[in-house]
Amino acid sequence: MTPPKPITLADLEPLARAAMEPAAWDYYAGGAGDELTIAGNRAAWDRLRLRPRVLVDVSSVDMATSAFGVALPHPLVVAPTASHDLAHPDGELATARGSAAAGALMTLSTISSRPMEEVAAAAPGSPRWFQLYPPSERDAAADLVRRAADAGYGAIAVTVDLPLPGNRERDLRSGFAVRMGVHLPADQAVDPRTGLVVLPTMTWDDLAWLRSVSPIPVVAKGILRADDAQRAIETGCDGIWVSNHGGRQLDGSIATADALPEIVEAVDGRALILVDGGVRRGIDALRALSLGANLVAVGRPVLWGLASGGADGVERALGVLRSELELAMALAGCPTLTEVTRDLVV
Amino acid sequence: MTPPKPITLADLEPLARAAMEPAAWDYYAGGAGDELTIAGNRAAWDRLRLRPRVLVDVSSVDMATSAFGVALPHPLVVAPTASHDLAHPDGELATARGSAAAGALMTLSTISSRPMEEVAAAAPGSPRWFQLYPPSERDAAADLVRRAADAGYGAIAVTVDLPLPGNRERDLRSGFAVRMGVHLPADQAVDPRTGLVVLPTMTWDDLAWLRSVSPIPVVAKGILRADDAQRAIETGCDGIWVSNHGGRQLDGSIATADALPEIVEAVDGRALILVDGGVRRGIDALRALSLGANLVAVGRPVLWGLASGGADGVERALGVLRSELELAMALAGCPTLTEVTRDLVV
Amino acid sequence: MTPPKPITLADLEPLARAAMEPAAWDYYAGGAGDELTIAGNRAAWDRLRLRPRVLVDVSSVDMATSAFGVALPHPLVVAPTASHDLAHPDGELATARGSAAAGALMTLSTISSRPMEEVAAAAPGSPRWFQLYPPSERDAAADLVRRAADAGYGAIAVTVDLPLPGNRERDLRSGFAVRMGVHLPADQAVDPRTGLVVLPTMTWDDLAWLRSVSPIPVVAKGILRADDAQRAIETGCDGIWVSNHGGRQLDGSIATADALPEIVEAVDGRALILVDGGVRRGIDALRALSLGANLVAVGRPVLWGLASGGADGVERALGVLRSELELAMALAGCPTLTEVTRDLVV
Amino acid sequence: MTPPKPITLADLEPLARAAMEPAAWDYYAGGAGDELTIAGNRAAWDRLRLRPRVLVDVSSVDMATSAFGVALPHPLVVAPTASHDLAHPDGELATARGSAAAGALMTLSTISSRPMEEVAAAAPGSPRWFQLYPPSERDAAADLVRRAADAGYGAIAVTVDLPLPGNRERDLRSGFAVRMGVHLPADQAVDPRTGLVVLPTMTWDDLAWLRSVSPIPVVAKGILRADDAQRAIETGCDGIWVSNHGGRQLDGSIATADALPEIVEAVDGRALILVDGGVRRGIDALRALSLGANLVAVGRPVLWGLASGGADGVERALGVLRSELELAMALAGCPTLTEVTRDLVV
Repeated sequence: MTPPKPITLADLEPLARAAMEPAAWDYYAGGAGDELTIAGNRAAWDRLRLRPRVLVDVSSVDMATSAFGVALPHPLVVAPTASHDLAHPDGELATARGSAAAGALMTLSTISSRPMEEVAAAAPGSPRWFQLYPPSERDAAADLVRRAADAGYGAIAVTVDLPLPGNRERDLRSGFAVRMGVHLPADQAVDPRTGLVVLPTMTWDDLAWLRSVSPIPVVAKGILRADDAQRAIETGCDGIWVSNHGGRQLDGSIATADALPEIVEAVDGRALILVDGGVRRGIDALRALSLGANLVAVGRPVLWGLASGGADGVERALGVLRSELELAMALAGCPTLTEVTRDLVV
Repeated sequence: MTPPKPITLADLEPLARAAMEPAAWDYYAGGAGDELTIAGNRAAWDRLRLRPRVLVDVSSVDMATSAFGVALPHPLVVAPTASHDLAHPDGELATARGSAAAGALMTLSTISSRPMEEVAAAAPGSPRWFQLYPPSERDAAADLVRRAADAGYGAIAVTVDLPLPGNRERDLRSGFAVRMGVHLPADQAVDPRTGLVVLPTMTWDDLAWLRSVSPIPVVAKGILRADDAQRAIETGCDGIWVSNHGGRQLDGSIATADALPEIVEAVDGRALILVDGGVRRGIDALRALSLGANLVAVGRPVLWGLASGGADGVERALGVLRSELELAMALAGCPTLTEVTRDLVV
Repeated sequence: MTPPKPITLADLEPLARAAMEPAAWDYYAGGAGDELTIAGNRAAWDRLRLRPRVLVDVSSVDMATSAFGVALPHPLVVAPTASHDLAHPDGELATARGSAAAGALMTLSTISSRPMEEVAAAAPGSPRWFQLYPPSERDAAADLVRRAADAGYGAIAVTVDLPLPGNRERDLRSGFAVRMGVHLPADQAVDPRTGLVVLPTMTWDDLAWLRSVSPIPVVAKGILRADDAQRAIETGCDGIWVSNHGGRQLDGSIATADALPEIVEAVDGRALILVDGGVRRGIDALRALSLGANLVAVGRPVLWGLASGGADGVERALGVLRSELELAMALAGCPTLTEVTRDLVV
Repeated sequence: MTPPKPITLADLEPLARAAMEPAAWDYYAGGAGDELTIAGNRAAWDRLRLRPRVLVDVSSVDMATSAFGVALPHPLVVAPTASHDLAHPDGELATARGSAAAGALMTLSTISSRPMEEVAAAAPGSPRWFQLYPPSERDAAADLVRRAADAGYGAIAVTVDLPLPGNRERDLRSGFAVRMGVHLPADQAVDPRTGLVVLPTMTWDDLAWLRSVSPIPVVAKGILRADDAQRAIETGCDGIWVSNHGGRQLDGSIATADALPEIVEAVDGRALILVDGGVRRGIDALRALSLGANLVAVGRPVLWGLASGGADGVERALGVLRSELELAMALAGCPTLTEVTRDLVV
């Protein structure tokens, strides 16, 4: 059954919820602790008021940008999320097809239900990155990086904010445990309570090593401080992904919209900047771009699209956001991303 | 049936709603997106606290002012709104009569159900402006300007914040499409999804051209930034209308009360300043005047009056606001608008 | 029937409401417009956080103060309110007796149901002031001042914030009109819509004249700005009463707690300072004293006491507040008012 | 019946409430006045946003700290609360056993249902302090101090914020009066209305004298100002306990999270700093430690554990908090308390 055409991403959420097992839904929807950070992410975007410019010719709005030399039709990115088979039987294959149809760079999670090569083959030629939870053994980690590069993934987004899983209490109450997917070795260390991957010993040295073995750009995902952004750049990272893991790691963490400005200032153009966390409207993306992000990632709404409509649903979700951003740029007087400047928000 | 005498504008809203088709009501009431800006406009006025002066003789409060040499008994203006036939069979004729009876300058929308000449004839001698969505063809635009001048409209308020219609989701859900009225050419470009006029190519050059062909003053309506206000003056505009289109264009836009001070400072007396957005009480108008607006416009409440009581209802709505402003000025120690100074608000 | 012993002033409110006619209750309870200022007064006190001092001997807390040379056991004052016969058949006589029993300076309103001499006789020897709405004719005004001085009233609190009555919409809806009491001449100008006294022509010259004819100190009641406080002192006033008329005049007016600091700074010890507005707890009085008020007045809660228990109820209400203030001073480390300093609040 | 294993401290609250007499519950749960400070304590922690560091090896998180030379496995402290027999028949014996099992320093209240020697014997060798309400007679006070030192209590936490009991209105309404326990002399002064201990004459001189007679360190408990912290150090105190008595003394007092920074700055390392007030999550403890507290105390949640499960419940409550703090430290990039620095919060 084709779901009814949604007008907003919010319209997709109840459709997805109805299509999923309650515990799996809660795994996707929930955050750590009291979910202060989930709420804080949303509130921080909404505190930013827009200052539109008028009388600019916006008959053609061009959202084109690029990432590491790859042209992108718009700056919207699919954030990595785990185990898409919870949302749809086609899993990441559907996400890849829908993302490609929507022109969105897709970041595939290490915790995928399908091998990265199959996902790549599902949407050949479309831009894709691989998110990495590095296996404990360096050989295994290097192997994943090489496989990703070989399969055409354009960058490695190394998650740096998951030494341990956050206290996701919805899962503790439901007993839900996500499977660790097809990419991690069988002997990868996991959290005994949740079965989730853990990376407690990972340090800047490991990141430097990963950078040294990666033939493709490396993005540090999960940065919330200017000093960590600076260090990531010194470590050789090509991108900084400002994220609090969708409020799933340290509850009470600063909202990404609040952390972004100091990081943009510290990076000072030396790396690509992404941000995610509570982006639900085109104006949120516009706010993020105004603050200096190069790309804007969205996680849960893609899953809402996937659960409610497979590849078509993913395309629909991303299409809603893309259309909203395009309209928001037009209404703000920005025919291209060049005009999306810091003075657009206050 | 004569509606019961309202004490406040808020009393009129449910009467109007009951008198209208639901989808037409939603067209009037709704805003873009999550209607953040509608709520933000209201909240911004209420954050401004008044600092009344005492022991001033206010036995006679004179609200008289003027606009482009035309004397006005008070600074309250009817903001342009579309298709008054949705609210009352007499449409803009009733609005014109009620506005004239209340001594309010009326701004007629391009998207009118009645020709501007008929509207002018309905209230001869009363102050009126014409709001312009410029037709794509310059000849047609110049023709509208000339017609307005010939019909006694005292200024052209050119809308500059509608390159495309905002995402008014109530209308998308209800399927409501307002008619584009009697003034626009049949071949005027419209938005395919909403049927609304679009002006995506309009630039400062078009505004300069319009100024050059207009025999009457030109006001730029929809300015939210000091730099745009400065540029409008450089382009020859005689007035700056601070507006976010009642929250119907870019959701998340700065509240007009928050944008007004920087614009007042930038304009520095070189142009007439109007403001609209969430004005529902005489104290809102007093706040706006204290921040430096010369005239204060009100949109939806006029429609509430129109829908609930035709011309009499319009007069009643504007009368409530005028009486409230008069009392607020008296209680703030302001016998004339000269005493309404910046230090009245904090 | 004796009402149950209240623990807090809030306990008295429903008792009083049950004892009164609804329209009279609304006259007492209501404010102007949307009652923003009523809510704002309360919120402003609660924003002030206390910084208690420890290890001070507070075995004896002495709240003694004075006003114009008259010793007072504590700084709590009965604010003037109209027509106490609406709350209790003994009217202002009961209020006077209860105030005297509680050791509170009572301010009798011009709009009293009993002549000031009878009220004075009801509580001989206890401190009292007379609140003045000056009659239009100076002879009548001077006569009221002289009568008050002759009857032992220690000061005249001239209301300066009522050029016209505020838009008290509860009364407009209920049709309630308070009687103008026994002190004003029959030909006193009143508001045609509400029947309330109006003083639209009163100016600083009238205040100066009143000061010149008054044998007793004059307090300007209704000041919300430092410049007006300065002018009142220059006009010869002996006291400044910071008030927004309990939120009954200009809705949206600054909260008294927010206006107080700039006025305390401007007065700089040259006049007695009172404040009222939303004082409902001993900690509110402590906050006001910390900000620099010399006396703290309370209006509606006295009426709650009066309506729920006559003179005993007034004593009870004031007793609750006095006990709370005494305890608050002890817990804040203040054995006398001398220790209640600006650094107690933040 | 063993209570179900709680996931959060909030899970324990309803279990405890169900296990207790309503009036005793209210005695524990309630605060002074309108309980503004109870709410304010919570809100102040949640306003502090965390700025986690990434890529730190947190495979081993060591929360070890010390207090006055005594090693502690973690910085969580049991705040003193009265009369544990209200929560469980084993009273403070159970609390001592549970605290010891959880590795938490326990502070025993003077108002204990069991003699301090029995409590010490219940958990031999575990760290404990004694909270002191000094008896009026210095001999009796010195005797309690000596008894505590003899029984192995490592410090005396002298309560300095209770000259009189706060207005705890839940108790006034329920008629509940806590017993004054086994340590105070029969002739100790009590508040006539509540039966609670009062210390209205206690001054800095008394604290200096107590310090002089105490063979063990003395902590001033109930400090909310930098100047009082400075004076406590000058008086010889070894520790400063930032507390507003759980919102039970002066309502409207500053939140402890808001008072802590100025006190940390004033103390400047010269004394041990504790803080309590609304700590309900590991992230609250992390916030407190980031602001400069050395130890973080928790009161009511220990009682929730005690009421719901005796010694096991206390261990469980403290265990939840300890696990949450450990995880929060790991997620914030802090393998030891040394890394918990001021820049972690904003």
